[in-house]
Amino acid sequence: MAERTFGQIPGYPEGTTFDSRAELSEAGVHRPLMAGISGNARDGADSIVLSGGYEDDKDLGDEIVYTGHGGRDPRTGVQVSDQALRGGNLALAKSSLEGLPVRVIRGSRHASPYSPESGYRYDGLYTVDDYWHDVGRSGFLIWRFRLLKVPTVPSAAERVGEGRADYSAAPRRETTVLRVVRDTRQAREIKALYDYRCQVCGTRLEGPAGPYAEAAHIRPLGAPHDGPDTPDNTLCLCPNHHALFDHGGLVIEEDLTMTGAEGRLTVHPRHRISNEHLRYRREHYRAPEEEPRPAARTTT
Amino acid sequence: MAERTFGQIPGYPEGTTFDSRAELSEAGVHRPLMAGISGNARDGADSIVLSGGYEDDKDLGDEIVYTGHGGRDPRTGVQVSDQALRGGNLALAKSSLEGLPVRVIRGSRHASPYSPESGYRYDGLYTVDDYWHDVGRSGFLIWRFRLLKVPTVPSAAERVGEGRADYSAAPRRETTVLRVVRDTRQAREIKALYDYRCQVCGTRLEGPAGPYAEAAHIRPLGAPHDGPDTPDNTLCLCPNHHALFDHGGLVIEEDLTMTGAEGRLTVHPRHRISNEHLRYRREHYRAPEEEPRPAARTTT
Repeated sequence: MAERTFGQIPGYPEGTTFDSRAELSEAGVHRPLMAGISGNARDGADSIVLSGGYEDDKDLGDEIVYTGHGGRDPRTGVQVSDQALRGGNLALAKSSLEGLPVRVIRGSRHASPYSPESGYRYDGLYTVDDYWHDVGRSGFLIWRFRLLKVPTVPSAAERVGEGRADYSAAPRRETTVLRVVRDTRQAREIKALYDYRCQVCGTRLEGPAGPYAEAAHIRPLGAPHDGPDTPDNTLCLCPNHHALFDHGGLVIEEDLTMTGAEGRLTVHPRHRISNEHLRYRREHYRAPEEEPRPAARTTT
Repeated sequence: MAERTFGQIPGYPEGTTFDSRAELSEAGVHRPLMAGISGNARDGADSIVLSGGYEDDKDLGDEIVYTGHGGRDPRTGVQVSDQALRGGNLALAKSSLEGLPVRVIRGSRHASPYSPESGYRYDGLYTVDDYWHDVGRSGFLIWRFRLLKVPTVPSAAERVGEGRADYSAAPRRETTVLRVVRDTRQAREIKALYDYRCQVCGTRLEGPAGPYAEAAHIRPLGAPHDGPDTPDNTLCLCPNHHALFDHGGLVIEEDLTMTGAEGRLTVHPRHRISNEHLRYRREHYRAPEEEPRPAARTTT
């Protein structure tokens, strides 16, 4: 089985139509033949099909409130019990935690002005902006996921929020989707290597859908810094130390002691960090007035 | 002296031209008659004028690398000493910390294909995406600020990153600028009330340009939650507890004890928090399987 692909599938641009679920599966745009959500709790969800299954779905075009799966009578499709944060629902929550883009496919049976006349249409990439539970019209608990279309905007705009959580850096142009998704994968590998623990403080944030950490670039991507999106330029940080790092409140010295935090940066034996990139960050982000010092900048 | 206004000035849309600095000042689009940066370290910077002063400026239209001020001979304009993170430079860094939009005005003497033929032109709102120091062509230290144009995108897209740092929620449509800027002001008031300390853990993140905290909405803004942007629906959190809160890993109970963190939520005597909004958050974001429990979800 091929590795799960996040983002656009080469050769199938937004707007591509398909006659059947079999065609969608063959193309790799949505592999499962029956399930509406493609994915699992480990990888996250890579695609969903809107085919009018759930009475609680809302479709505003560039914003979709998608109802999770489960709790329905397989024969009648009527909601007969609560949904749980498991299976495809947990996969969508994981995509939100990791900032992964989800391919959205609309089917003709999906009750929405945005549905195709017939068959299925790939309608582009969405991020899972939020997820929560609600009591559906049926009276049973349902999980809901707010999906926001990844917009097409000028190139500079796609860098708004660069250096924040992966999902702030979600791809903003179709042409950059594959690059950005590849970036996200290597960022996820670094986070997994550290089991989502901050290399500075060891904090591991955990919610019902799993752990949350952020991948931080040492030498920033984008002009004029032009840092590479490679493991030796990537750290696994908690959001607090990521924010401090971005704003010059955390400096990693050559010996991996830190100004702005106590002790030494934790580095996994399989993670080589570039001294050159660390030096670039020190030379351009450390306040010039400041002397290296051990005192913690994070006061509690 | 009128309060500093962030965002678009009513009556002066993007593209408005002005004959002189005096006209710009009169309109309130850029108040100082001489200085290129309007603002101070407390409020942040609300506007800048690009008028070809600095040899190290870069102007790509929707992305500008702006050189800070200071260190130049007032008569010759030649860089004769290092710049410091003070004055207008510190104001721009503060705008980055707070996610404030900065009005950009280009003058005809600014050497760029985007400059007006004559006079000055208001060219819209930019966020301060990044700031760092460099050695300028003169050989002296200069501070640099990457400004990114606040893009015009579909309405749903402006909500990408909602609930993240203020600056991820920077306005994305001119029509929403004033609303969002008002939101940002009240969020900043809550953060100032707590002196940028997290109401959950007391952490205060501090970098060279000042403290950093995030305003979190208890009942989320936007459909279907439709929470209000009011102080009683806003918390001052560190990025870690903001991320936990968003992902259901931190639940605030009715008695202000917390599931996912130890102790009680800190509440300032002048900050009334709505129990109704807290209940909404619990009812829709707490994992239904989960029983309230004191154990911290943040493991260190």
